[in-house]
Amino acid sequence: MDGKCHIVVLGGGFGGLEFCKHFRSEDARITLVDRTNHHLFQPLLYQVATAGLSAPDIAQPIRSILADRPDITVLMDNVQDFNLAERKVFLHEKILHYDFLVLALGGCNSYFGHHEWEAFAPGLKTIDDAVRIRSRVLLAFEEAENSPEREKHERLMTIVIIGGGPTGVELAGAFAELARTVLRRDFRHIDPTEARIILLEGSPVILGNFPPDLSRSAQRQLEALGVHVRTSTRVKDIRDGEVELETGEKIYAATILWAAGVAATPVAQKLGVELDKSGRLKVLPDLSLPGYPEVFAIGDLALVIGGDGKPVPGVSPAAMQMGRHVAGIITNEIRFGGKVARPPFKYFDKGTMATIGRSAAVAWVKKIHLSGYPAWLMWLFVHLIFLVGFRNRIAVLVNWAYAYYGYKRGARIITTEIPGSRPAREK
Amino acid sequence: MDGKCHIVVLGGGFGGLEFCKHFRSEDARITLVDRTNHHLFQPLLYQVATAGLSAPDIAQPIRSILADRPDITVLMDNVQDFNLAERKVFLHEKILHYDFLVLALGGCNSYFGHHEWEAFAPGLKTIDDAVRIRSRVLLAFEEAENSPEREKHERLMTIVIIGGGPTGVELAGAFAELARTVLRRDFRHIDPTEARIILLEGSPVILGNFPPDLSRSAQRQLEALGVHVRTSTRVKDIRDGEVELETGEKIYAATILWAAGVAATPVAQKLGVELDKSGRLKVLPDLSLPGYPEVFAIGDLALVIGGDGKPVPGVSPAAMQMGRHVAGIITNEIRFGGKVARPPFKYFDKGTMATIGRSAAVAWVKKIHLSGYPAWLMWLFVHLIFLVGFRNRIAVLVNWAYAYYGYKRGARIITTEIPGSRPAREK
Repeated sequence: MDGKCHIVVLGGGFGGLEFCKHFRSEDARITLVDRTNHHLFQPLLYQVATAGLSAPDIAQPIRSILADRPDITVLMDNVQDFNLAERKVFLHEKILHYDFLVLALGGCNSYFGHHEWEAFAPGLKTIDDAVRIRSRVLLAFEEAENSPEREKHERLMTIVIIGGGPTGVELAGAFAELARTVLRRDFRHIDPTEARIILLEGSPVILGNFPPDLSRSAQRQLEALGVHVRTSTRVKDIRDGEVELETGEKIYAATILWAAGVAATPVAQKLGVELDKSGRLKVLPDLSLPGYPEVFAIGDLALVIGGDGKPVPGVSPAAMQMGRHVAGIITNEIRFGGKVARPPFKYFDKGTMATIGRSAAVAWVKKIHLSGYPAWLMWLFVHLIFLVGFRNRIAVLVNWAYAYYGYKRGARIITTEIPGSRPAREK
Repeated sequence: MDGKCHIVVLGGGFGGLEFCKHFRSEDARITLVDRTNHHLFQPLLYQVATAGLSAPDIAQPIRSILADRPDITVLMDNVQDFNLAERKVFLHEKILHYDFLVLALGGCNSYFGHHEWEAFAPGLKTIDDAVRIRSRVLLAFEEAENSPEREKHERLMTIVIIGGGPTGVELAGAFAELARTVLRRDFRHIDPTEARIILLEGSPVILGNFPPDLSRSAQRQLEALGVHVRTSTRVKDIRDGEVELETGEKIYAATILWAAGVAATPVAQKLGVELDKSGRLKVLPDLSLPGYPEVFAIGDLALVIGGDGKPVPGVSPAAMQMGRHVAGIITNEIRFGGKVARPPFKYFDKGTMATIGRSAAVAWVKKIHLSGYPAWLMWLFVHLIFLVGFRNRIAVLVNWAYAYYGYKRGARIITTEIPGSRPAREK
């Protein structure tokens, strides 16, 4: 266009955005492509699904975040294909030529080859997913209230969550709280506290990447909220409203949610390079693709082996650190013309936490293991700090304070029409 | 059920809810039926469509509002039919027998017999409508940014609003502000301030029910924001992306919105009683149906002639006053067994206002005519008072203050997938 170095960034999540914020050169221009128009604060998405926050509370227009960066063009489009040899990205609307390419496309739900399960057990990845899940759960309670047949109530008021990682634990805890406190006085014919929240985990413990004492504590805290935690329980099949376990046992539930597996987005397969079994790109220590020093992969899309020999986890701090790392490399490359050695990426683990409910959480920072109220306070503090820069931090704070002190959740409105679940509207 | 008098209220809008709040008797129980699970603060719905507020900011779960009223059962269901002689209401899920029936089902958009226009020019009645309209407008701007063909830009960046009543005026003003201030710095290839907002009105003035000086002032304020106000302009036909005027002129626009006509909900036709040409029920001075003293109609569903010989307007204060009036009548009837004369309904007009944008509005309270900043302050004050009782009043305040001082709107995220407008997601 103007002889400037052109950097194409695919994905406006934590990694892609952090790259943009930390890369700035007068000799370069950036094109950022995302399939949505907003950056999503993923760690709080479960709060939208469980009616604690509204969608715009945790989403911010990407254009707005980057409005003061005339060197960045934002495109809302889908990636269709690549030609790495010719340095081209094929979007739905146009073709982009790049000098550097930053792949930050993130992950998606993995059903371990059972794609047909997705229709019956949706996962939680996008705002649309979250709003749909919220509507589905609330509609099931409405249907139970409306139905005189007691035997239907059990199915309608059962929520099965498959996968005992952080997302599954957070969803289970939040739904248990929703039923036991928020909805408690709302109905006349059903008792929402009788809702069954079942968390299924295939391995012997939930939160398997936490130290054993915190895994056990998380399970106790969930059970105190009334969640049925079933570990070493594998799913054989999922059908409409029905989960079949490996033992042959069947669980009937109006709501079945998938939180068991994450894989890199399938677009990565179009790159024609080597992937691991989760579809992630095997990158060099500097995060570039083997054979393509001008192409980098960051975030959930990249398989990076850390100093301890284990893969760097797919969490937002890791994605952000990778974004900053690549920004540093490309800045040097442009300034010194590729004559500088590239440093390897080093992941700095600030700790891990998972929230379970009001005053219930687990947190693990190096040798410090916290659970219950102190862990929850820490979780709250970290997420408030994180939200700084988000326009809605005050509104979110107000909503949280309200939810905490009033045991209420204002976002529990049903907005999505779920096909087949309700009669057509009169019009 | 228990020998108590059973009152069925259809509709959880302003009228139905106000009835419930003001009627309380130990000898009666209420069943409130609504097709959604939330009460909607209709006067601010245009703010959701124009990305100023998020959906839960203006919607509150009906169950939550009435949680401390064990005498009230809330059902989420659709009304299918009536049998007034046998005092029955047929819902989709069950049949309700009533002693008193309060019809508060509200209105819907009227296309004056052109139902086929609805697909191309949606109206603004529900949360779903608002979120869809917001997504449609924002997507059109994204498409323009993405498209190298300059000639497509004009169509994509044109919004036509049909109908110059309060809703049309508020939408036109808010979209003009969105384009001219909020989105101004967001794009690189298009200039959002070049967006055309066209307000079409068939009669010679906009806001025809306001005094002439305020109508003129509203038009000037809209024009100052860049809105093309075209009065005495009638629509002949609406097709996909195209409005044809009676003169034969054609306007091409990615977004066409209908704010021209409101009618009572078509369910009223099932009652088998006399309706006016807008489908409203002709009620007696006490708001009951002729021949059915136990059935009342309130709000947009009722045609009530005021003291000045003109119909009471379809605004929320009128609906609320009617709800209180009927609550008083039924209370007396139950206490004294129908031996008291029923007073006629009298509408107390507190004034009318329409907001146009930041510091721009018109307000008319008896002999006081306000426009510009003072009218806008009054509008703000009234709506804040109105919102008291809504959980989100602080959050709404924060969002508004943010929007006002920062010229930003955080709710401008695209969440609804509009069929055909975007390629399918990669998955």
